Amino acid sequence: MRPKPLSGFPEFLPGGRIVELAVLDSLRETFELHGFASVETRAVETMASLTRKGEITKEVYVVRRLHAADGDAADDLGLHFDLTVPFARYVQENAGHLAFPFRRYQIQKVWRGERPQEGRYREFTQADIDVVGENALAAHHDIEVALVMLEALERLHTRFGLPPVVMHVNNRKLAEGFYRGLGVDDHMAVLQRVDKLDKIGPDAVRALLVDEVGMADADAGTCLELATICTADTSFVERVRALGVRHELLDEGLDALADLVAAASAAVPGRLVADLKIARGLDYYTGTVYETEMVGHESLGSICSGGRYDALASDGKRTWPGVGVSVGVSRILVPLIAKGELTASRSVPTCVLVAVDAEETRGEAMATATRLRARGIPCEVAPKADRFGKQIRYADRRGIPYVWFSDGSVKDLRSGEQVPANPDAWLPPDADLRPAIRPRG
Amino acid sequence: MRPKPLSGFPEFLPGGRIVELAVLDSLRETFELHGFASVETRAVETMASLTRKGEITKEVYVVRRLHAADGDAADDLGLHFDLTVPFARYVQENAGHLAFPFRRYQIQKVWRGERPQEGRYREFTQADIDVVGENALAAHHDIEVALVMLEALERLHTRFGLPPVVMHVNNRKLAEGFYRGLGVDDHMAVLQRVDKLDKIGPDAVRALLVDEVGMADADAGTCLELATICTADTSFVERVRALGVRHELLDEGLDALADLVAAASAAVPGRLVADLKIARGLDYYTGTVYETEMVGHESLGSICSGGRYDALASDGKRTWPGVGVSVGVSRILVPLIAKGELTASRSVPTCVLVAVDAEETRGEAMATATRLRARGIPCEVAPKADRFGKQIRYADRRGIPYVWFSDGSVKDLRSGEQVPANPDAWLPPDADLRPAIRPRG
Repeated sequence: MRPKPLSGFPEFLPGGRIVELAVLDSLRETFELHGFASVETRAVETMASLTRKGEITKEVYVVRRLHAADGDAADDLGLHFDLTVPFARYVQENAGHLAFPFRRYQIQKVWRGERPQEGRYREFTQADIDVVGENALAAHHDIEVALVMLEALERLHTRFGLPPVVMHVNNRKLAEGFYRGLGVDDHMAVLQRVDKLDKIGPDAVRALLVDEVGMADADAGTCLELATICTADTSFVERVRALGVRHELLDEGLDALADLVAAASAAVPGRLVADLKIARGLDYYTGTVYETEMVGHESLGSICSGGRYDALASDGKRTWPGVGVSVGVSRILVPLIAKGELTASRSVPTCVLVAVDAEETRGEAMATATRLRARGIPCEVAPKADRFGKQIRYADRRGIPYVWFSDGSVKDLRSGEQVPANPDAWLPPDADLRPAIRPRG
Repeated sequence: MRPKPLSGFPEFLPGGRIVELAVLDSLRETFELHGFASVETRAVETMASLTRKGEITKEVYVVRRLHAADGDAADDLGLHFDLTVPFARYVQENAGHLAFPFRRYQIQKVWRGERPQEGRYREFTQADIDVVGENALAAHHDIEVALVMLEALERLHTRFGLPPVVMHVNNRKLAEGFYRGLGVDDHMAVLQRVDKLDKIGPDAVRALLVDEVGMADADAGTCLELATICTADTSFVERVRALGVRHELLDEGLDALADLVAAASAAVPGRLVADLKIARGLDYYTGTVYETEMVGHESLGSICSGGRYDALASDGKRTWPGVGVSVGVSRILVPLIAKGELTASRSVPTCVLVAVDAEETRGEAMATATRLRARGIPCEVAPKADRFGKQIRYADRRGIPYVWFSDGSVKDLRSGEQVPANPDAWLPPDADLRPAIRPRG
């Protein structure tokens, strides 16, 4: 019997994996160009550290040794459900060995014990960048992480044809200052209801604000007007001002958000908007918040989110504020690859198959392959000295573009052209050296 | 309070992680040069598939959703303890979509619920290569996987100064044929006792062969003589012949092993020996077996092992024979990095820190960094417009070799030399572009 896939645990066939590797390499390239250092944390955290946020508890996968003694506290472990909790622990554990501000990227699997459904996985890959300071962290890092991530996502678009993205940003200070300016004390209560705007619509949110938070109907309406403001330039500032609310914190939030929008519209025009309905409800963000949609794939939800924390970690004496964003790599790639919207030109790294005339001359074919590899050309030697038609079919099935023959010629399987070539000098066109990643059509 | 590391779950500081990434990249490069395709499998397998080998059971980490209903069979999962079981399952699950012989590499974490001790981890990284056929797999792949892995390990030696290795190979057919030639029926019983040679010594093994397997003392002695044969060339064949044992299977094993030794001594001289005591006791290998020692670090045990299976997987109708080897990346790197025997020249990818004169001119510094990045130079902009001495210290603490100033000059922090430079043309020496990995001394 053939084993069945496990629901919620996506795996790629080799061609899909080549697409995924190219995407991960490209993300890493951008992050490293900006000086972010790689961190990889263990897959497990203590349950105490995973369950600090009450509502996440139900999603955690608990991990135990099969024959662990009952009550063995050392075995009280769970798989991490994001890369923020582990990173906060890593920073605190290693603070004495890190240089702050510390800029790291982290590309790893995470696990959530959710009921699997469209776009929800139990195991998936995330790519996070964060900048974390010791006791203080300058505001320009809020701009930096957005620009770095947009550059990374833009490169995926131009390089491989992934859909373009639009990042939606807001600032918690702006919202908090606005609500306080309206006389609201519990700004989180307002924020959490505004966060439901896309799900339940403006009328229902307005009713909640009046009934549950006790706002005057006119004030609730003003909050909804704030939430409808969405601009690709800094004109949102004037539109907020026109609502007539004043508060010091509101000014601070407006300034910070305007700086971010101005920087992004210069660096990556059209890819970032100030969207004042973005709330990111229950997360403990204290400044900028980020969400990102992939154009034409809005139903996937946010493929890249994050924000600023005043305290990513704290040990009582010291506090580590941080700002970061996280891309849902699997959330993007699993559907695009499954639907064939993103493919690799071949299912193997191999650029050249070296044909074998007879098993007795396999050594010569191996020597030819070694000479090609010495100049960085991925090669394999045909597994069997079959007739050439069969060896060509071996290459063709895998998408290998070239076959090398012992008479010193190389055949391009796409054009059919066969030319004499020297294994110490021949090079394929750059585009053929690695598998190409292409969108459909 | 500072969180404490979890015993058995090693994590690297950023500098160590740079070493690990360089090693993983280099392994991948070699595997891809030989046409091996990447496969990544989910972290979990069903407990049924993990516990098929009885004695492994105690090491498995069981994974359950925190609020799983009791007896929910879908949650009967465990973390994989190697990459062979998952790969066998992947091959069987996807056989219809794979082209055979299928060549794959797989670099992933694995988990074992062992008592942590020196050199034993509960979470560690392995890098495997395997070639798997459908119903048949040619013998030359036994040679290929050894040569590819030796090339990969040799590259780590020449490129980064990792210690050189010696691969010890044997062939189960050789041993089985030899024991059968001596009239033994249960060759596995002999093999498992000979496997204890290094641990308990020849006298104790001889006693076990006589007392437990029921061999004549002289035959037990002949088995021990076989086990002492270890040659870097094919002279082992004559030494085995001289023991006077004859069997068809022995001939087959001798021929196969001689081919492997001859090929390796031509391709990577001095890195492979025929070592007829290698048994790999309980594993289900049926032909070539591989173990590898790192010179000067023999106490680590085998850092790279594997062998041939007649049936890596089987579904009753079809069988998938395979041959492969697995490097214990963490087993090699964790001690070398912890002892400072392998270091990175810097703890960040950054090659150039662009200094900031004043917060008002941060945009200009960012523009300079963008121009440098456009030509592949990893840059960051100083986080604060401190006096230059402090900005230079920021770079120095992280090992960043160059600081760029707004007057259009770049300073090499190692030589102290400062020269005028154009951000659209300047390039660092190749060796400075990425962090260098170096051995101590």
